[in-house]
Amino acid sequence: MKINIYVLSNKFEIFYKDAIKEYDKRLSRYCKINLYVLKSKNILPSYKIQISTKGQNISSEQLAQKINQFAISGKSNISFILSDEFEDIDEIISISPMKMDEGLLATITYEQIYRAFRIINNQTYHK
Amino acid sequence: MKINIYVLSNKFEIFYKDAIKEYDKRLSRYCKINLYVLKSKNILPSYKIQISTKGQNISSEQLAQKINQFAISGKSNISFILSDEFEDIDEIISISPMKMDEGLLATITYEQIYRAFRIINNQTYHK
Repeated sequence: MKINIYVLSNKFEIFYKDAIKEYDKRLSRYCKINLYVLKSKNILPSYKIQISTKGQNISSEQLAQKINQFAISGKSNISFILSDEFEDIDEIISISPMKMDEGLLATITYEQIYRAFRIINNQTYHK
Repeated sequence: MKINIYVLSNKFEIFYKDAIKEYDKRLSRYCKINLYVLKSKNILPSYKIQISTKGQNISSEQLAQKINQFAISGKSNISFILSDEFEDIDEIISISPMKMDEGLLATITYEQIYRAFRIINNQTYHK
């Protein structure tokens, strides 16, 4: 599975860069994940999920079910778009109604995707 | 205002420690904030807010209003307890229904408290 994370800017604080680098490494056994800067709304052809402060919050288990369903149904290229503004999307999910630093939100997204793969594979969550 | 953050374990990953250290520094002009490990449920006398995956999610603005109200009404010692288990509390708030790494949840809590003080003081959010 190929997972693309789109952010408005990747000028993250160093500790968020470090966190993302670590989750990227851990995720390498489950998927190919890449971080992109959303430039003039050019998103790779993929199933597009907006992560918004609005809309229904989902649990870690629900995200795992969703990713598992994508794999089963052949949706092998998934984009998570970390922007409230973007419109051309297939689905909206919400992590929290709180407005957050974008580096922090990207870190949470990576951590939850890693957690989802651990849940899907019945593996205990570990560091 | 004195703010206490209680966690079950402070064995955080290094990048979360770095993040918390940075927000702690930024918050020093607004409040005195400390991180404690919750040992045998001994919490300092304070107004106790549980941060749980359950319950009503609140926005950053609502958290800011809450903290402002505490300041106005003389609640000068506030504890945020990052545990779903703890029972002797005054209030429950939720950041997200997602289960998260405890270091990540502590980072979000610090970031949101910092954001709250910026909102209360009509200051733009900056790094």
